[in-house]
Parts: sequence; C-alpha cells; structure tokens
Amino acid sequence: MPRRIERLAIIGLGLIGSSIARAVKERLPEVRVIGHDASSDVRGTARNLGLCDAVIDDAADAVRDADLVILAVPVGGMAVAASAIAPGLREDTIISDVGSSKASVAEALARALPGHIVIPAHPVAGTENSGPAAGFASLFDGRWCIVTPDAASPADALAALTGFWEALGAKVDVMDAAHHDMVLAVTSHLPHLIAYTIVGTASELEEVTESEVIKYSAGGFRDFTRIAASDPVMWRDVFLANKDAVLATLQRFNEDLTVLQQAIRRGDADKLEDWFTRTRAIRRSIIAEGQDDAAPDFGRKH
Amino acid sequence: MPRRIERLAIIGLGLIGSSIARAVKERLPEVRVIGHDASSDVRGTARNLGLCDAVIDDAADAVRDADLVILAVPVGGMAVAASAIAPGLREDTIISDVGSSKASVAEALARALPGHIVIPAHPVAGTENSGPAAGFASLFDGRWCIVTPDAASPADALAALTGFWEALGAKVDVMDAAHHDMVLAVTSHLPHLIAYTIVGTASELEEVTESEVIKYSAGGFRDFTRIAASDPVMWRDVFLANKDAVLATLQRFNEDLTVLQQAIRRGDADKLEDWFTRTRAIRRSIIAEGQDDAAPDFGRKH
Repeated sequence: MPRRIERLAIIGLGLIGSSIARAVKERLPEVRVIGHDASSDVRGTARNLGLCDAVIDDAADAVRDADLVILAVPVGGMAVAASAIAPGLREDTIISDVGSSKASVAEALARALPGHIVIPAHPVAGTENSGPAAGFASLFDGRWCIVTPDAASPADALAALTGFWEALGAKVDVMDAAHHDMVLAVTSHLPHLIAYTIVGTASELEEVTESEVIKYSAGGFRDFTRIAASDPVMWRDVFLANKDAVLATLQRFNEDLTVLQQAIRRGDADKLEDWFTRTRAIRRSIIAEGQDDAAPDFGRKH
Repeated sequence: MPRRIERLAIIGLGLIGSSIARAVKERLPEVRVIGHDASSDVRGTARNLGLCDAVIDDAADAVRDADLVILAVPVGGMAVAASAIAPGLREDTIISDVGSSKASVAEALARALPGHIVIPAHPVAGTENSGPAAGFASLFDGRWCIVTPDAASPADALAALTGFWEALGAKVDVMDAAHHDMVLAVTSHLPHLIAYTIVGTASELEEVTESEVIKYSAGGFRDFTRIAASDPVMWRDVFLANKDAVLATLQRFNEDLTVLQQAIRRGDADKLEDWFTRTRAIRRSIIAEGQDDAAPDFGRKH
C-alpha cells in the first residue's frame, strides 16, 4: 500500500518553510500541517499569519505522529534541529529537509537520527527575502526539487516524498548527494559568493562613493545586489557545509577570470567577442527550459 | 537666447538609438528625428518600425542641419562614425553620444571633429537585448544620464543637452570623463565581466553538464546569464576602451574574493556572516533610491 502523507511537520518557518506551509494549504488541503520554529518571534508571526493548522512550541511535540517531517533550517543547524525532534519521531516517519548542500546534511541527519528514514532534498527555489512573511504558495511552481536518497532509502518513502513535491508544483530529480553538491556549487553557491564579493568591493572603494554606486547601479551592479541580499546565516552555513565543491569551482572561475583579464590587458578583441557570444546562447537555453522569464530585464517595470 | 533642438540625428539604431527615437516621438513630438545606421538591414527594420521621421542611407546626409547628433554605436566605432558624419555637420551642431566609457570616446570625437561642439554623455540604462526592435520609449525613465563636458563646452549647448535628456525622463549628472570611467567600471563594467566569466565557467565544467547548469539555474546562476547575454561587440569595445579602470577595479575584486575564499577554507563563520550582513544593506539603499524594484526576485512571475 503506498504511503500517505496525512500529517506534515515543518521545522523552521522562514522563507522556504512558510512557503511549503502555504503551498500545502493551497494544493493539499487534506494534509494537516504542524509548524515549529526555534524562535518564539517567528512562531508568533506564523500564528498571526495562520500559516499552519497548529504552531507548536516544542520541536519533539511538533513532529509527533507526523508522516513527513521537513527540516527547513540553515544547514549548519540541521544536527541541532534533528536532535530536538528525535524524541517525538515515529520509526516510520520520513525525515527530509530543504538545505542547499546535501552530503553534510545527510551525514548530520544520519548521525542524529540513527535507524530513522532520512531522505534529504533541496528545492532549487527562493527569493532574496527571508522570514515567515516572505513565503508564498507558488514558490516551487516549475522549479526543480533534487532528492538525494541512499541505497537504504525505502522505495515507498522515496515515492511519497517525490509525490509530495510534485503536488506542490515542483519537478523532481534524483541524484547522489556528492553530485548535487557539485552541481549546486556551480549554479547557486559560486554565483552567491561572487555576488557577495562584488557588492562588498563596490561599497568600499576610495575612488567611488557608496552613493555613486547606488545611483548608477542600473548599469548592471544592481542585479548582483539581489543575491547579495540573501539571508546571511543561511549562506554562511552553505559555504562552510559545501566548502570543497565551492573552492573547486571557485578555482575554475579564477582561472577563467585570469584569461579574460589577460585578454583585456593585451587588447585581444577576438577572444573577448568569442567568449561573450558563447555566453549569450546559455540564457536562451534557460528561457527555453522555462527556468527564467523571456521578458527583458527580468520583466522589471520600466 | 537658449538653444532649441528642433532637428535630431541619431547615428546607430540599436537598443539605445531606437529607444531615443521612440522616447522623442512620445515626449518631444515637435522634434524631427532623422536616423541612420551603417547596416542596411537595421535601416530597413527602422523604416518598417517607423522609428524616425526619416532614415537616411548616408551618415553625412543624415546629420545635415541637425541641432543635435547622438552617436549610438559601440564605443570602438565612434571614430569611424564621427568621420562619416563630419562632412554634413554645421559648426554649431551639438555632437553627443551614449557610450559606456567616456575618456576614450571624448578623445576619439575631439580628434575626428576638431572645432565642433562635442559633449559626451552616457545614459545608464539598457536591457540584455539589442537591435532596433528591442528599444522602448520608457527606457530612460528615472535612470541617470551622465554628461561629461570639458572646459570648452558652451554653457548653452550643455543646457540644451541636459534639457533633452530630462525631457526623455532621465535625471542628469555632470562629472569629468575620468571619474565617469571609474564609477562605471565598478557599477557596470566589472559586473558584466564577472557575469561573462561565471557563465563561461559554468558551461565548460567536466563534472557538471550544461544541461544541469540550465535546469538548476534558478539557484542564482540565471541572474548572471541576463547580463552575460548583452551585446558581444558593444561589451568587447567597452572593456578595451576602459581597460585601465576595469583592470584596477578587477584587482580590488580579486583581493576581496581571496579574503572570502580564505574565510571559507578556514571555516571563519563570523567573517562570512559579517560580510553578508553588510552587503544586504546596499540593496535596501538601491531600492530606496528608486534604482530597482522592491518586489522579490526582481518581480519575476512565480
């Protein structure tokens, strides 16, 4: 008999956790949603917003009788969150998460929850905003959710988790945790690191004031500030949790940057034009795949 | 008596030139707009779109009797465009441009047009699209246009050029060309260089396929692909024309990237969190200044 998810516990009610709560309310109204957050402020906001059927103060109480528990906390907080819920878990409860790195999370959860069914996952979706008020039900529509089971993951639990994310509008891919971490280092972690760097650089130059940087940001800089406005604690944890893959892709980026730097210094016009022509094609593929809007300038109002 | 602009010639009918034509038609309907482009294809498209009152095949003929000529060609093509219009210019015609670097353009125009009134300018606005069909009338609304006169620039000509850009919806700032080039190196050229680099890096890794990069691009990477889809010839020229300022800011970026790289390698959580908290504040200032949308994710549809 296929597993049914009738009771869901969400631990952590920030942007992603609160978006899951909203999406479940809208798309899976028969599922009872129990929420918990370590912060009493966040719990209060979640209650005021009516995000969940119940918001519970104690983590172990929140997961009691849950068919599925989703840990939606920064990846550096997974071990603590897992230990906090452990006393309340049934043996057949599926425990999953939404963290942006998977190998370190899989290890932390396996250690904290021995004998339990742990299937890590990562919905590749988000905005630069954080907190329970920032979530929305359609966040996962058309986005990919990567699930990283291991050899011990029960097939029926994997199917239930996959079905859950599909019901929220996501497309599901399965891969191993190490490959996930390399893919996301490229498509998410390195872009964030670069954006954080350049926004820091621009704000501390002596020759150009911060006010000038802000005024003339429409020349391109402002695009980077969106990503560099993402949650500082979440991203601190991601870089530390996925250190090896991030540093490996960063090395590749540095090599390429050196090549372009040299082309500029030498005035190698052909090399620059060739490079810029190749990169133009990638965006067309992303739009064709439905992963970005075809409207110019992301559809910003003009 | 203040100078009046009754006849405008636009040389180059791509994204910016065609947006000027559209904006003038909408906001300054009394101004007669003459267009020219070196490409007969572009001239044909401009005629079909009805962008100008007339599109003229010969550059010198196009500027005859113009009160203001705007060169809207890649910065590497300014000297050739200026030489082409020279035979048709009146002595009191104001010649301006829209190039993204100003010192090299000022020099090229001064050399090609001795004795003429040259006042370079740069509207800090654009999208990733190019060509005459990509323009739109509201492109300059609320954006800054930087004008870089020199000591010899007649005050009435500067006032006329400033008034022209304000009529198209822009806010005008005056600064010297060298400072412009340093400011734009930070707010526009370096961001483009970084975006071009990372998109190239991501598309050539052995460990991650291009198809994976495209699928999971919503994790942040897709933001960079917009800028990296900008016109290759225009940007080749910008980096070569503003080489010194670009290389100087790139060096500062590289220093900062090394600092963050080391913080990740050493597991320096506090340094990362501090940095990411500082950069978050910059975006708020940009939104408060009206230089970006407050909507999450640039207002992308979800």
